[in-house]
Amino acid sequence: MVIYGRNPVHEALRGRRAHQVADVWATAGAAREHWPEGVRLSVRPAEEIERRCGSSAHQGVCADAGGYPYVGSDELLAVASPLIVALDQIQDPQNLGSIARTAECAGASGLVIAERRSAEVTPAVCKASAGAVEHLKIARVRNISDFLAQARRAGCWCYGASAPAPHAGRGGGKDRKEGRRDSRGEAGPTVDYTVPDYSGGVVLVLGSEGVGLRLRVASSCDQLVSLPLRGQIESLGVAAAAAALLYGILQDREKGLDKTP
Amino acid sequence: MVIYGRNPVHEALRGRRAHQVADVWATAGAAREHWPEGVRLSVRPAEEIERRCGSSAHQGVCADAGGYPYVGSDELLAVASPLIVALDQIQDPQNLGSIARTAECAGASGLVIAERRSAEVTPAVCKASAGAVEHLKIARVRNISDFLAQARRAGCWCYGASAPAPHAGRGGGKDRKEGRRDSRGEAGPTVDYTVPDYSGGVVLVLGSEGVGLRLRVASSCDQLVSLPLRGQIESLGVAAAAAALLYGILQDREKGLDKTP
Repeated sequence: MVIYGRNPVHEALRGRRAHQVADVWATAGAAREHWPEGVRLSVRPAEEIERRCGSSAHQGVCADAGGYPYVGSDELLAVASPLIVALDQIQDPQNLGSIARTAECAGASGLVIAERRSAEVTPAVCKASAGAVEHLKIARVRNISDFLAQARRAGCWCYGASAPAPHAGRGGGKDRKEGRRDSRGEAGPTVDYTVPDYSGGVVLVLGSEGVGLRLRVASSCDQLVSLPLRGQIESLGVAAAAAALLYGILQDREKGLDKTP
Repeated sequence: MVIYGRNPVHEALRGRRAHQVADVWATAGAAREHWPEGVRLSVRPAEEIERRCGSSAHQGVCADAGGYPYVGSDELLAVASPLIVALDQIQDPQNLGSIARTAECAGASGLVIAERRSAEVTPAVCKASAGAVEHLKIARVRNISDFLAQARRAGCWCYGASAPAPHAGRGGGKDRKEGRRDSRGEAGPTVDYTVPDYSGGVVLVLGSEGVGLRLRVASSCDQLVSLPLRGQIESLGVAAAAAALLYGILQDREKGLDKTP
């Protein structure tokens, strides 16, 4: 695929498919920027670049980066205490790109998307992610529910992002894992996102804007978590919710690393 | 202005300019939805709606909502312990809309934008905010630095969102306000966003994507705060950063409200 834009091309050159990146086309202006050694740069007029990548948002740069190197879901689960984001039917490339960028910044080990009814990694998604998809490992799976079952077998806890329940509590007891999936295998009631203990392997599951998590996906989670809504409107955008949740989870996971000066 | 889209029109009908909303145009399908009592609904073909609002993203609904009811910055500062978001040169309507939506959901008391070099509230911004701008109070000011000075005189602490400093610390001492502006009036070094005590009046200042806070605006802040970056890419999107910071601030402000069961 021909990727375009400054960040996407620069990140591709130092990312997971760096070895695949063939000739970079750049306008005379873009060619004068700093390029790493070994890059094959071809100076072309902007119109040619636009014709090659099919977008006017190229910022003077494009490159053939080959196919996107999806990984297998087992690779995501093979690391110690993974933090994985799983997306259920996110179809908007801007949202997928934005979530990938945030996940990469928050140190997530990977992202999982479904093969069908989901945006896949295209040049537009790469651009929307500011090139984050060149570093973040992304797996495409047949079925999100099956992936969550696989993740739970591997020792992960799966948290589904949900709208606040009418009586969603904050605080939580001593054992913050106790409110999670009960012995019948049902996800517990929705709790405020600050309640769970996010140590260990974690999968955060986000549903599509408007619809939210489908029932089968929600019931494959150990716990449903929600962000408080303190205003008049009924929901956050999914990319904003991803950012608030991922940084909340990161903050909780890194608490143990705190060194008070 | 003619606003369009389901959420914008519905939120306008129950929002701050509800009294301004004139005849709602809806397709036959959209007219069958639930509409509040007293709404003057006019059934029109989709093409007429598109022509009236000038966008194909109307979802079968548009309405003339009159001018956007900006408030004065003093109105934002008149409430007890306000939480205000100030934007320095955010020019992308999608980002402005997304930040307004998140701010409204996080219970912010208002948003401040500059009169020049900033996106203003247009129908596209209203749509991108899912109608949140119909509830959230938004002030346009001549100059963001002057507003920050005004906010500080009113007793607010101003936090500027910044990239992590090489030695940004976590943890913090006993008095989490101590690292802030020193006696010479200089903003302290950038600290992790979890360090400050966000009680009382707070202004969160966000700069434009790519450029960040301008020097004059940064130096008008009491403290610069940063989100940790745990991956390879160098920055979060501004709308994602706003979400992570606002929910982090909300969590800190509401800690005192915790009731352990």
